[in-house]
Amino acid sequence: MNIKLPAYFSKKGHDLWLTEDEREDLKISYRIKEILYEEQSEFQHVMILDSYSFGRMLVLDGIVQTTSLDGYIYNEMISHIPLSIHPDPRRVLIIGGGDCGVAREVCKYRSVERIDMAEIDKLVVEACLKHLPEVSGRLSDPRVQFIFDDGVKFVLNKVNEYDVIIVDSSDPIGPAKSLFEKSFYQSLHKALKKDGLMVCQSQSPIFHAEVMKQTFQRIRSLFADVKLYTAVVPTYPGGLWSFTLGLKRSAAPNPEKLNENDTHYVNKQIIERCFSLPQFMRDQLNH
Amino acid sequence: MNIKLPAYFSKKGHDLWLTEDEREDLKISYRIKEILYEEQSEFQHVMILDSYSFGRMLVLDGIVQTTSLDGYIYNEMISHIPLSIHPDPRRVLIIGGGDCGVAREVCKYRSVERIDMAEIDKLVVEACLKHLPEVSGRLSDPRVQFIFDDGVKFVLNKVNEYDVIIVDSSDPIGPAKSLFEKSFYQSLHKALKKDGLMVCQSQSPIFHAEVMKQTFQRIRSLFADVKLYTAVVPTYPGGLWSFTLGLKRSAAPNPEKLNENDTHYVNKQIIERCFSLPQFMRDQLNH
Repeated sequence: MNIKLPAYFSKKGHDLWLTEDEREDLKISYRIKEILYEEQSEFQHVMILDSYSFGRMLVLDGIVQTTSLDGYIYNEMISHIPLSIHPDPRRVLIIGGGDCGVAREVCKYRSVERIDMAEIDKLVVEACLKHLPEVSGRLSDPRVQFIFDDGVKFVLNKVNEYDVIIVDSSDPIGPAKSLFEKSFYQSLHKALKKDGLMVCQSQSPIFHAEVMKQTFQRIRSLFADVKLYTAVVPTYPGGLWSFTLGLKRSAAPNPEKLNENDTHYVNKQIIERCFSLPQFMRDQLNH
Repeated sequence: MNIKLPAYFSKKGHDLWLTEDEREDLKISYRIKEILYEEQSEFQHVMILDSYSFGRMLVLDGIVQTTSLDGYIYNEMISHIPLSIHPDPRRVLIIGGGDCGVAREVCKYRSVERIDMAEIDKLVVEACLKHLPEVSGRLSDPRVQFIFDDGVKFVLNKVNEYDVIIVDSSDPIGPAKSLFEKSFYQSLHKALKKDGLMVCQSQSPIFHAEVMKQTFQRIRSLFADVKLYTAVVPTYPGGLWSFTLGLKRSAAPNPEKLNENDTHYVNKQIIERCFSLPQFMRDQLNH
């Protein structure tokens, strides 16, 4: 491929390195085997890279989003936890989720009849279906409806339509910023059926504690019940990552709903125990 | 300070950066405020740096060992889990643990009468006591006996002496290599009383799966019971970290032994639930 390399690439001898420049004080650099896909979309710079440490990776505006090595952890945790809580999920909405990994997990539930996936950037979906099969599974399930539109706009006029809404966003900068605002969670509340529930990734308890607390408080102010759980996502800074659930009717997870043959990270014990928070996180949420 | 900077430092404009070069394909770089301590010991290059992301850090041969921001997670998890299992820990041996953070946690148990700490490198202890108080707590408990010697050699002739042995080692390269060998675990078994137990850090399930499995198998082959648990350590690669317990007499943790006011990460739920492993780790240990 004959392309002009963006600023987050550097060459050292024969080696190509990607350096995430998201954080001013901490840089993570990945040695890259090959650039498999590279395109500027209407919204962001989209790449699929093959790396030595994590295999293939989706990189948006120079930031690693998901990888072949560990993408399953995030995708399983944001999907199987809400689906183990809802007693009978039939209609599911995914907002974001362009790598198709969440849709792939949701498709493992036979009760699900239809999955709407509102992803703003069609190029991300096309790139992942073609070049990131370890994450997307080359998703081709007839229950999945792709809507290439702004998730905030798409959900605005939906009323009482979904059992489960999964917000699989990138960081609250760039195109995903509005997916962390209270008015957006209000739209989700309205779009859910009366026993519906939503989940979103709510950033790192260590590096983005304020975003996590704000997300938790915003969702708690709107929903009958709010629950926060964690998982380890090796490619995200700090490793520890938080997810926040908003439930219109309080309910507990039912680990028996999970088929452990379907998953690589989640199991029945993880479903029960991911809600056990370290002491400092309890303090963060209580204060 | 007027020093010649080692190769793992670089200057970009006015900024000083430390880049860990432990891994060939993944580099983590920390922006450094100040070099607080820098000395070549008999065993390794010892530094205490003040960083923008993690506060003060202990750095050995260019590799970050513990930080003010997250050191408590590792130190609490390697201390309170074994101490919640042993019914009456009186004599404790720490092997390694030069940053003094483990000894500080063990001192929180009144039943403990004496703590031997066999650390090979006196300079590490001196540097941490003086320059890393967030981790060492400027430890000055009369129950702690420092033995500045090779832990392998120190434990070799001990028989039936300790209730709990905590192996707080660095990676299995350099001075800590022999702390991962089977003959060393045999010495620990002999040094423990009949209801004693040991714990060690057993590396990352993602990046060092073979070391973790080997450690688990070696300890299982020697002890009546073996248990593996995890914690998230943000400054270690991949975030997810494993610890392996070897028990001469099978026993379960008793979360009631923990005073939650003493800790920042561990709580009663974490003590019970840290043994719930992700599905891929169960598969790793079963195969």
